[in-house]
Amino acid sequence: MKNAKISNAVINRLPRYRRYLLELQKKGVEKISSKEFSSLIGYTASQIRQDLNNFGGFGQQGYGYSVEGLREEIDAILGLDKEYRMVIIGAGNLGQAITKYTQTIKGGFKISGVFEKNKELIGNMLEGIEIMDYEDIVDFVEKEKIDIGIICVNRESAQEVADKLCFAGVKGIWSFARVDIEVPKHVALEVVHLSDSLHTLAYRMNDIKKSGTRKNKEDKKE
Amino acid sequence: MKNAKISNAVINRLPRYRRYLLELQKKGVEKISSKEFSSLIGYTASQIRQDLNNFGGFGQQGYGYSVEGLREEIDAILGLDKEYRMVIIGAGNLGQAITKYTQTIKGGFKISGVFEKNKELIGNMLEGIEIMDYEDIVDFVEKEKIDIGIICVNRESAQEVADKLCFAGVKGIWSFARVDIEVPKHVALEVVHLSDSLHTLAYRMNDIKKSGTRKNKEDKKE
Repeated sequence: MKNAKISNAVINRLPRYRRYLLELQKKGVEKISSKEFSSLIGYTASQIRQDLNNFGGFGQQGYGYSVEGLREEIDAILGLDKEYRMVIIGAGNLGQAITKYTQTIKGGFKISGVFEKNKELIGNMLEGIEIMDYEDIVDFVEKEKIDIGIICVNRESAQEVADKLCFAGVKGIWSFARVDIEVPKHVALEVVHLSDSLHTLAYRMNDIKKSGTRKNKEDKKE
Repeated sequence: MKNAKISNAVINRLPRYRRYLLELQKKGVEKISSKEFSSLIGYTASQIRQDLNNFGGFGQQGYGYSVEGLREEIDAILGLDKEYRMVIIGAGNLGQAITKYTQTIKGGFKISGVFEKNKELIGNMLEGIEIMDYEDIVDFVEKEKIDIGIICVNRESAQEVADKLCFAGVKGIWSFARVDIEVPKHVALEVVHLSDSLHTLAYRMNDIKKSGTRKNKEDKKE
């Protein structure tokens, strides 16, 4: 794959392509042209061809894309053909919400443990997972070969938790802490600020009220 | 405000600007230059000036931005100086997670009710809110003047729920359903696919493994 310097925009569009391909597969669609795909997903046909060419174009002229083939390729590109072992740090409201949510995500993402500093919560069960002592996280991550640490602690503790996870050897951090954190170059980081999405919605609502109609298409954050 | 056609990229950056300004306020910083702001937030100084000029430039030459003033301006632009009444539809795992999560979001966003089709769940309490019958949602939204409907149902029901909410008169829909939905032009829509973020993380992890280092900065989805 010649994915030397693929922009975030492209990478962030891949999961969306994948969702549409899954829907097409469910409908029994076997192949699709970039034009048909364009009318579905809302990107231009040339954009779609460009995006997918980043990974060594799949489609054949005059034939279009094989829906299943393209989806499998994207799965492989995203690394969804692998298993990922995850830990969640923070068993408060945020951690409880994200644990519950993460369990609704399909694919090879498995929560191996939940960790918490608050002694009163340690030992309790959360979504069928025992809440363990944060003190033991480094040993656990090393022993269980954890790939991803999910940070659900408050802003004050987030960086310290990230440092500990990186030290313990996670390959990726998925952070829901309401502060931006820094990690070494060899660790992947994805920070989710769900409230940003709600704030954007508030903006759009007020924007519509002012102008009477919607100016932007949502769900396309390129 | 001359926000005639402001791009999604700019709108999506505003909540991020706001978060940094809040941090600066907490630290007691009163003013900041676009240069200083740039080194903090990681956008170029000219990008920052450009973005903020969309809303009628705030900063004064040689003085920089008033941290509090700019934050209040952005709050007003985003509509965070208002109150929003919200309902959550779906009290399953996803709805439970999002209800819990939403209650951790600060500001004027209030959950007025949770609605569910499953008779076995109706009447139960969820995070201190009584789960009501989905049959009654239209009356409730009208009577309680609900602004935002949060969709936490499965992909099959999502569009039907969205239609009902729009019919009842919500101004915005925040959807966590794993399918894209359509709404009338006068309704704002923000669709969250949290799993996309996890899939992007998986990509970055595998990309780093291949190349040995990180190529992209995360948490900047322009």
